[in-house]
Amino acid sequence: MSSLRLISPRISRSICGQTPRLSRSLSAKRPHFPCVEAHAARESRIRAAPRLSASPSTNPEQLSDSGPEPPYARPNPKTYHIYRDSAPLHLTYSPDPLPSFDVAYETWGTLSPSKDNVILLHTGLSASSHAASTPANPAEGWWEKFIGPGKALDTNQFYIICCNVLGGCYGSTGPSSTDPLTEKHYGTNFPVISMFDMVQAQFRLLDHLGVNKLYASVGSSMGAMQSLAAGWLFPERVGKVISISGTARSSPSAVAMRFAQRSVLMADPNWNNGFYYDGLPPHTGMKLARQIATITYRSGPEWDLRFGRRLRPLPESEEPSPDAPRSPALCPDFLIETYLDHQGEQFCLKYDANSLIYISKAMDLFDMTNSALSSLNLRPSTSSSLLTTNTSHSKSHPPPANPPAYLPDLAEGMKPLANIPTLVLGVQSDILFTVEQQREVADALRMAGNDNVSYYELGGVWGHDTFLLDVLNVGGAIRGFLS
Amino acid sequence: MSSLRLISPRISRSICGQTPRLSRSLSAKRPHFPCVEAHAARESRIRAAPRLSASPSTNPEQLSDSGPEPPYARPNPKTYHIYRDSAPLHLTYSPDPLPSFDVAYETWGTLSPSKDNVILLHTGLSASSHAASTPANPAEGWWEKFIGPGKALDTNQFYIICCNVLGGCYGSTGPSSTDPLTEKHYGTNFPVISMFDMVQAQFRLLDHLGVNKLYASVGSSMGAMQSLAAGWLFPERVGKVISISGTARSSPSAVAMRFAQRSVLMADPNWNNGFYYDGLPPHTGMKLARQIATITYRSGPEWDLRFGRRLRPLPESEEPSPDAPRSPALCPDFLIETYLDHQGEQFCLKYDANSLIYISKAMDLFDMTNSALSSLNLRPSTSSSLLTTNTSHSKSHPPPANPPAYLPDLAEGMKPLANIPTLVLGVQSDILFTVEQQREVADALRMAGNDNVSYYELGGVWGHDTFLLDVLNVGGAIRGFLS
Repeated sequence: MSSLRLISPRISRSICGQTPRLSRSLSAKRPHFPCVEAHAARESRIRAAPRLSASPSTNPEQLSDSGPEPPYARPNPKTYHIYRDSAPLHLTYSPDPLPSFDVAYETWGTLSPSKDNVILLHTGLSASSHAASTPANPAEGWWEKFIGPGKALDTNQFYIICCNVLGGCYGSTGPSSTDPLTEKHYGTNFPVISMFDMVQAQFRLLDHLGVNKLYASVGSSMGAMQSLAAGWLFPERVGKVISISGTARSSPSAVAMRFAQRSVLMADPNWNNGFYYDGLPPHTGMKLARQIATITYRSGPEWDLRFGRRLRPLPESEEPSPDAPRSPALCPDFLIETYLDHQGEQFCLKYDANSLIYISKAMDLFDMTNSALSSLNLRPSTSSSLLTTNTSHSKSHPPPANPPAYLPDLAEGMKPLANIPTLVLGVQSDILFTVEQQREVADALRMAGNDNVSYYELGGVWGHDTFLLDVLNVGGAIRGFLS
Repeated sequence: MSSLRLISPRISRSICGQTPRLSRSLSAKRPHFPCVEAHAARESRIRAAPRLSASPSTNPEQLSDSGPEPPYARPNPKTYHIYRDSAPLHLTYSPDPLPSFDVAYETWGTLSPSKDNVILLHTGLSASSHAASTPANPAEGWWEKFIGPGKALDTNQFYIICCNVLGGCYGSTGPSSTDPLTEKHYGTNFPVISMFDMVQAQFRLLDHLGVNKLYASVGSSMGAMQSLAAGWLFPERVGKVISISGTARSSPSAVAMRFAQRSVLMADPNWNNGFYYDGLPPHTGMKLARQIATITYRSGPEWDLRFGRRLRPLPESEEPSPDAPRSPALCPDFLIETYLDHQGEQFCLKYDANSLIYISKAMDLFDMTNSALSSLNLRPSTSSSLLTTNTSHSKSHPPPANPPAYLPDLAEGMKPLANIPTLVLGVQSDILFTVEQQREVADALRMAGNDNVSYYELGGVWGHDTFLLDVLNVGGAIRGFLS
């Protein structure tokens, strides 16, 4: 039944004359997979030294020099402040409040005597309060280049406060905290929380500090959601709002990407329904989740430029013979693969898995349409006169072409922000918080009657991470808007 | 230290007067996660009935009616043909050939006496030879609406052959096949294969059938890669080429998405380095991988329209009280989540995990730039005169604006296709094989001197899956080009 024709010179060699060499080695040897063995090896390291979870074996500095990477340093627990609030915190989705809570925070600059120069800086999903270095903790912060004298958030002028969000694991109350009722880690007995809950907790800290009104509420990514939520909850306590690469209504495609991350994490047997604090953390699931997340943080065009189709350099021991093509591996082989692998590896022991699950869920749930907000028993703490703004589209800005059907609903929901000057900034290469969503935030605000919306769109190839990297353009827009 | 101010009406209720109800139920009850339990439940079902792997508990018909879904039916092993070739098959990346191989195939229409009406239809990653129903197997095929009398691939005129690819698990030789040298499943002793190897195997079948020249080589997605590879390997045996939503050079972002899938699959302990055929398959990893894949197959705009932010309907037992907002779940809750969950669940026992790994790797490796091809010891089986085509850009088509730096290299590599009329069709909402890549294929072909390139770009929201769904536009373009 075999058909033996001359098809190509190499096939013909194997047919005409000799029987080709059928090496037993092809079948007899069991292959091994370093990328899979890495999971077991990591687990052994954790078993041998449980405190490894506080000191991962890889760090960002080991990343290749091929492109810019934002710093990700865990804060030093001894150097952030903790605000302990022993009164309950009402929650958006739970009938029961949190009985008490902590908020970890750091500050930069000097609080003015009238306490009117405060900027509340909101973080993205996995960041800590350590936005910039401090005298107590000189480690580089996640927005190091944006905070300081003469920088985007100018410490000569402003007093900047950055909190670890409620639900986080860097000092604020979250699933890894001890439940005062059981004296055990909350685990997944922690209630589902919302952006609004995070902001409520932060304003309890502001109350404690005697800060009645913010000069500005500033945030990027999930921080932008909080920034908008702060303006919505406390319209009279927020002077300006900055929303960078955020959204006022999480899109189903962003939900999909975060769902994929939660799925791989929760499928890790170590996750153990969220009760892993006395055992081994779900480090494999965390690595896999971070790999997926990293895909959404950057952009294809950046990878084209940065990695293209280049392969990892082979160690000498693996080099092929000069006359044979390099044999491809099923484990990471292209540089883009080793990049994702590295990003996952360096993150997987740094952050709490349950915090990732709860906070990413809070992002999914964020929706400022009026129909969504009105189902939540939430309302802005403001005089009702603020809410009478005309919902017809502002005269100074024509209505957008092809608006999504929910835009009027979103504009209605965002009415409490109608009198707050707002900067909306987006990035065209962002695949997680698309530029369409940035336009949507600006359009909804304008449609809600806000005549003080500044809108910028940036090019470039850094995707969602642009807010962490582009000091010149992102920083410049912030500085201009705040001055 | 606590700061108790009036922040919102609901917060104030919990502060002024009564101590809020601190239900023990919040903390004492261990939560459960149906989406995680599903993995163990599935494993129990497989243990109880190992043949479940041939009959998954869910099927595509159970999918919600909210939008179009392509059929995915596994073929009936009794109704496809198998071509058994007992001669070795040279491989692109392995020093050792495959000692022998099978190719499963099905046909539609009638072979003309001169055997000049043959269309070779190439499949995407996970498809079988069952592209359309046959008298022997009336189950709907994956391209059912595109094949038949008067359809895009018109069986009144053409004889259509569709093969399960080398590396697959639906009758053709792949990692789940028995290695004749060891009489055990290959597992990951199966060699890494290339698109070119798949095409070589198919042309051995054509030799066997006495088909010297194809009327056309047709494929979408990975099938488009094969379609181009067929024209490259056998320029004198391919009359026309159709490439739909494919690429001539896999992009790093597509590699990233496939890497994420392979990573979650290979991390499943059941995968067992690829040697799971005598045990339990890595069904959890397969489900997670398919969830990720599904994100790349459709588009955000489709999900906006189809699911928006709607939640799954709650069964009566879970309905909240009228005065409380619905409590969000960490398991799938938004319809987009249940959709992805369902897609993963219905696929995870249908397809072989190792086939997914090997074939997705072959996609990553596909690169028709001259520099990549010339490292592979591959060459087209053609008279050298064909290769003298001028590589300057065709006069009838001006060079593209902002071409990628590798475009001349790609044009040089694609020179063997310079004389084959080619249809390139792409979809603007495709995030896996972007429209830029479609333009790149057309540009490279024209730059290689091909004056017979038809290029179409489709709108719509179905993303990469458009080729499976849009009979009117995709089918129309094919029919027009073939006639």
